[in-house]
Amino acid sequence: MTRFQFHIHAREGRARTGTITMQRGEIRTPAFMPVGTAATVKAMKPETVRSIGADIILGNTYHLMLRPGAERVARLGGLHKFMNWDRPILTDSGGYQVMSLSELRKITEEGVTFASHIDGSRHNLTPERSMEIQRLLGSDIVMAFDECPRADQGKDVIERSMLMSMRWAQRSRDGFNSGEEHAARSALFGIQQGGLHEDLRGISAAKLQDIGFDGYAIGGLAVGEGQEAMFATLDFAPLQLPDDKPRYLMGVGKPDDLVGAVERGVDMFDCVLPSRSGRNGQAFTWNGPLNIRNAKHAEDTGPIDERCTCSVCATYSRAYLHHLNKAGEILGAMLMTEHNLAFYQQLMAGMRAAIAESRFAAFAADFRRNYFAGK
Amino acid sequence: MTRFQFHIHAREGRARTGTITMQRGEIRTPAFMPVGTAATVKAMKPETVRSIGADIILGNTYHLMLRPGAERVARLGGLHKFMNWDRPILTDSGGYQVMSLSELRKITEEGVTFASHIDGSRHNLTPERSMEIQRLLGSDIVMAFDECPRADQGKDVIERSMLMSMRWAQRSRDGFNSGEEHAARSALFGIQQGGLHEDLRGISAAKLQDIGFDGYAIGGLAVGEGQEAMFATLDFAPLQLPDDKPRYLMGVGKPDDLVGAVERGVDMFDCVLPSRSGRNGQAFTWNGPLNIRNAKHAEDTGPIDERCTCSVCATYSRAYLHHLNKAGEILGAMLMTEHNLAFYQQLMAGMRAAIAESRFAAFAADFRRNYFAGK
Repeated sequence: MTRFQFHIHAREGRARTGTITMQRGEIRTPAFMPVGTAATVKAMKPETVRSIGADIILGNTYHLMLRPGAERVARLGGLHKFMNWDRPILTDSGGYQVMSLSELRKITEEGVTFASHIDGSRHNLTPERSMEIQRLLGSDIVMAFDECPRADQGKDVIERSMLMSMRWAQRSRDGFNSGEEHAARSALFGIQQGGLHEDLRGISAAKLQDIGFDGYAIGGLAVGEGQEAMFATLDFAPLQLPDDKPRYLMGVGKPDDLVGAVERGVDMFDCVLPSRSGRNGQAFTWNGPLNIRNAKHAEDTGPIDERCTCSVCATYSRAYLHHLNKAGEILGAMLMTEHNLAFYQQLMAGMRAAIAESRFAAFAADFRRNYFAGK
Repeated sequence: MTRFQFHIHAREGRARTGTITMQRGEIRTPAFMPVGTAATVKAMKPETVRSIGADIILGNTYHLMLRPGAERVARLGGLHKFMNWDRPILTDSGGYQVMSLSELRKITEEGVTFASHIDGSRHNLTPERSMEIQRLLGSDIVMAFDECPRADQGKDVIERSMLMSMRWAQRSRDGFNSGEEHAARSALFGIQQGGLHEDLRGISAAKLQDIGFDGYAIGGLAVGEGQEAMFATLDFAPLQLPDDKPRYLMGVGKPDDLVGAVERGVDMFDCVLPSRSGRNGQAFTWNGPLNIRNAKHAEDTGPIDERCTCSVCATYSRAYLHHLNKAGEILGAMLMTEHNLAFYQQLMAGMRAAIAESRFAAFAADFRRNYFAGK
């Protein structure tokens, strides 16, 4: 049975559309992965996540190691069974969340020690332990353990951090391979670092390819550098990575970020934005974002988005969603999350079809014209 | 087209099973109505509410008049369209919530003035305005406007309050009838008061029958008097009401309350308990309630209830629900609510089938033996 294959069906410029084939299912690229942080895509049943077109979801090693714990998930039969999602799951390595969420961090060559943001308990995370946790969870796509430094640091800091992450990448590869049974049916992705520096990213890409991975993530972006700097980096970073392997831009992003990144050769994305902002009343549409709590929606009988094909837009008015959000009703969070993630899946499907039919340039231009029309 | 018919199919002792037929659908009795306070059964999509077997839901006049407002709901096409529920809706009169939730109440013969618990704004509620609001909402079963006094007050207070509620019942009937188009397709229920006093409840029942209603509610119970006093009152109160009309016990209750009340001739119920306690981690089962947050469930791969036929029990383990509830995940509230309301519907279906097959006494005895086995 196929462990991991990436087949590119069509290209337009640097953009590509293809299929990743794994034992638990196919992943159509460019792909957006809904984030299921704590073994749930917040406010959605897994069957709804699937019904909107998601082929793969993401789980967070940091959250799951703290609660309910990786060994507990393993005893309960793995993450897929635990949360009732039988398709592929990508797990991050925990590195990014340790930096952004935990307290009392100490980073050494060995790894990271930190205090849980939940109860203050002390934990260690190393490349070897990250691989073990992701194996215990039963992850399909395992991410190498890396350090993600803040974007505003000096080039020397970025370089030292990147070089350590590359040593951790080798240790991740070794740790992953040692779990033979799991390694035989799952994939390991490396993560390119190097900030906004083309030379550092080139060194990182070369070192990762020397080790060899099933796919390559672009890390260290979407950390406050802004879209212009991110796109400038994406003008070179994907080209430094193998053409025949999936490229995954971690933690991105807004709809216009996705279109710009696909134009630059990215195949996979994840981001909490559609789900988190949905819970806070922001809806994404083909005509740009809107705040459903705005008084102008109070008696609007139209859907969030006239073009959207999701069941929320087919069923509920802006007026009803406005009411639910003003009243703090859970159903408001449920429906706004479902719409936003469905909209993201429709955006990805639109890009895939456009690339396949050699009309992606027009698609992207149309998208931006409509999306920014109100601005 | 039938406006309102109640057909009793079978009886056992005082218990009855039947069907209420209305334009928007049939209601199988004994019936439990999930509470949809603010135009949503909290944490559930309406299609899920229907899928678990609910024939009718309840909406709260007090909440809806304050937010989004009855006139707004009417402009948006009525409550059914607004919230996507096309089957019958019963609306309460607002009287009970004004007493329990609002501030700065002043009660006169004319009605009640009060301050909103949401924003402190001042409002009036009279029998006439309550009828108007329920008409604007498009309610199928309209409740008369009454005063619900605290159970611990003297008999003279209870009597004076009941007599005013009976005058309000006549004004409710007149107000309801004046909305001719709505009255031609909906039903009006009166509400018996009189506390725990057989003589007062007898007077109330007689006055209500002089006015004439489609169904009769038993009000003023489940306000802290305890199950023993409630059952003692239900030993006579339902018998004072017409045998050929539905009897509705408002705001009740726990599963054992429902069984005991059906034994005493009650046909309809509503209560926030299954949904509210579900959001707080309490699950109802055939073997009594359990707290899913209890550590003993952390690695329990079994369902909430082995006998339950709901999709939550078919799909998710206690361990997963324990995790979701400990992590404060919205999906935990969604799944616990769905299970609890599904369990309530299964309990009602079980009672209906048992009465139809003349084995309700055994059903009730079995239920209590299992439900209280752990106590």
